[in-house]
Amino acid sequence: MTIQEQMLVLAQEAQEATRIMANLSATAKNDMLRRMADALEQAAPALVEANEKDLARAREKGLSAAMVDRLMLNDERIAAMADGLREVAELPDPVGEISDMRRRPNGIQVGRMRIPLGVIGIVYESRPNVTADAAGLCLKSGNAVVLRGGSEAINSNVAIGDVLKKELLAMGLPAGALQVVTTTDRGAINELLKLEEYIDLIIPRGGEGLIRFVSENSRIPVIKHYKGVCHTFIDASADYEMAERICVNAKVQRPGVCNAMETLLIHKDIAETFVPRIVATLKGKGVELRGCSVVREFAPEVIAAKEEDWGAEFLDLILAVKVVEDIDEAIEHIRQYCSLHTEVIVTNDYRNSQRFVREVNSSVVMVNASSRFSDGNQFGLGAEIGISTTKLHSFGPMGLEDLTTRKFVVLGDGQVRP
Amino acid sequence: MTIQEQMLVLAQEAQEATRIMANLSATAKNDMLRRMADALEQAAPALVEANEKDLARAREKGLSAAMVDRLMLNDERIAAMADGLREVAELPDPVGEISDMRRRPNGIQVGRMRIPLGVIGIVYESRPNVTADAAGLCLKSGNAVVLRGGSEAINSNVAIGDVLKKELLAMGLPAGALQVVTTTDRGAINELLKLEEYIDLIIPRGGEGLIRFVSENSRIPVIKHYKGVCHTFIDASADYEMAERICVNAKVQRPGVCNAMETLLIHKDIAETFVPRIVATLKGKGVELRGCSVVREFAPEVIAAKEEDWGAEFLDLILAVKVVEDIDEAIEHIRQYCSLHTEVIVTNDYRNSQRFVREVNSSVVMVNASSRFSDGNQFGLGAEIGISTTKLHSFGPMGLEDLTTRKFVVLGDGQVRP
Repeated sequence: MTIQEQMLVLAQEAQEATRIMANLSATAKNDMLRRMADALEQAAPALVEANEKDLARAREKGLSAAMVDRLMLNDERIAAMADGLREVAELPDPVGEISDMRRRPNGIQVGRMRIPLGVIGIVYESRPNVTADAAGLCLKSGNAVVLRGGSEAINSNVAIGDVLKKELLAMGLPAGALQVVTTTDRGAINELLKLEEYIDLIIPRGGEGLIRFVSENSRIPVIKHYKGVCHTFIDASADYEMAERICVNAKVQRPGVCNAMETLLIHKDIAETFVPRIVATLKGKGVELRGCSVVREFAPEVIAAKEEDWGAEFLDLILAVKVVEDIDEAIEHIRQYCSLHTEVIVTNDYRNSQRFVREVNSSVVMVNASSRFSDGNQFGLGAEIGISTTKLHSFGPMGLEDLTTRKFVVLGDGQVRP
Repeated sequence: MTIQEQMLVLAQEAQEATRIMANLSATAKNDMLRRMADALEQAAPALVEANEKDLARAREKGLSAAMVDRLMLNDERIAAMADGLREVAELPDPVGEISDMRRRPNGIQVGRMRIPLGVIGIVYESRPNVTADAAGLCLKSGNAVVLRGGSEAINSNVAIGDVLKKELLAMGLPAGALQVVTTTDRGAINELLKLEEYIDLIIPRGGEGLIRFVSENSRIPVIKHYKGVCHTFIDASADYEMAERICVNAKVQRPGVCNAMETLLIHKDIAETFVPRIVATLKGKGVELRGCSVVREFAPEVIAAKEEDWGAEFLDLILAVKVVEDIDEAIEHIRQYCSLHTEVIVTNDYRNSQRFVREVNSSVVMVNASSRFSDGNQFGLGAEIGISTTKLHSFGPMGLEDLTTRKFVVLGDGQVRP
């Protein structure tokens, strides 16, 4: 079979499986996930063995130590994957929920019922745990899933997929509901992205290059997130101690993630006192600061920011800092440089808090809290399938509900249209 | 300027205008729509004059009388456009609604706020009233809009757009919020479809060819609906009188629209009595019936259906009729041939009504009602921007709310992530 034929068959099998998967009870799906979790733990030796092939090849190819570490599976990481599936089993099932049921003047009742999207394609890189994590979320929400991981993790991904598929079969469920693409040919992605008739949504997870490639080549709707350039604006009325605590947490606690702060904006009325204070604190935590001229006036030790520092996703202990005239300039700067991820205002001014919440249209807008909270788990959505910075369908952290849609349900007793 | 540059400028102006439009109060937007309505009526002579140019060219080109009629504007149709805008002014404003606000264990409050999508592109054919209708819905939901109508209606569309834009300017609002593409060059659509950075959603309205072209060439998300192949299944327990009433309404009341019935499925247990009855009734209404062999056994006057009749969108007084073994075969037939638009069961069996509602995943599923109700107005959504038969973002009839998305709002008092 050509790659084109292989992908077509695989997507058709997945679509066919949705007939069964969409109508499973929550109990059946939760049993399935718990059995899969147990099976992963029992298969740990085999998974480690498959993973060693990937590690050996990675070392041969001279991949960085960090990359090799990302690839690595051990008993602890396998247990974490299994626990992830058990946690998804505990989440409420979004499918079947009926809402907004209202009686129309002619007596028909019109409401909406939540249903799975159908088949979800996940295109991802390196970490093999995504295979189990994404499968768990897609299956729990009644979908079938097509998984296309990075070629460097192919043996690990296939081994994990086989363990999970075996449990589907053991429960009499269609194995087609969980498809792991076994070819490492890059053309496979291209073929998948054309199968709009069988795949309902594509979620790319990985670097900007992968995400751009997928979104530019897909006929299937894509939910994506390129990067997180999170801003924190310290308003004139901010409590200094609170502002400092939030800045340190947002920048230092885990600088390599998308919800870390990348640019700090400070109201000019407090620049003279707050700039030296926050600069000293952040420097003490090992942060490299790149500031505008006003910042450097009050803290001459700060490096001069270049134009490309505004809107940069450093993913490191580096921070751009700018003094702004007022909230208008802060909002304008954010509009120009943000990535629609998460923006924060620290303020004690009621009107400014309201304006910031209303006028900043990033996917997450916060008052007096660290941007590090921008996460599906922290928001109470349960496990997260990704963060969307495009506005259609989902905007912001995505949970199980974002893997579903709603159809209209109409209950009549013989009404016809006049 | 090249067409590429023209489209870029136009989309950038629209994006720029969203800063103002997204934050308008409902009162300001409703005033704007009512002023636009009055202005359209006052400009009726000028609109009719511009329209006459389109009509003259259409006649020259030998367009069919039906096509020419679609293009035509007169005082009555202009008044209907104006009333459409006034009706949209009466609808509740979806923007700013805050929902699901919940306190997390650490005290942050997390909720969601409804916001406009940003810039919406509408690509449509013939009828010039779409210019005003689509503009009204997009502007009321706080969006900017780019309108690209058919070349045959270019003078009418531009004239309507000018009237509406003048009211924006008179109110001190950015004229860029309403963009009418004035070039009839086909390449303009291609250029628009690449501007993913400035346009958030494309809605094509027109024939299947246009919709396929747009969805295959767009980098911007597209919400579309190819066709409506609506099924009605008469279950064994159906009340004959009700079944007949629903079938006649669904097929005959307005056969040329997408929510008219195209295929009738009848349970075998009632075929002997119900088939002759419904055939006689529908024939009496001028419907041409194309049936399976079992239908023809009980009603020999029915023409034999060909394979291509199943799943056909006749948009005419033609109906495909099939006798099925049971509800399973009915659901299976629908799954195979439906267009995900609207499917109906007529039944008095509780379990079968529940199964049909759960297992048929078209965008609208009905029990004991005519498929002709499948419409945003009938469902209480107010005016309708279109019907989506793709599952992402919106599924089924789309109202104002479907032109918005939700961002997360987090209100804290200094929390940081541990």
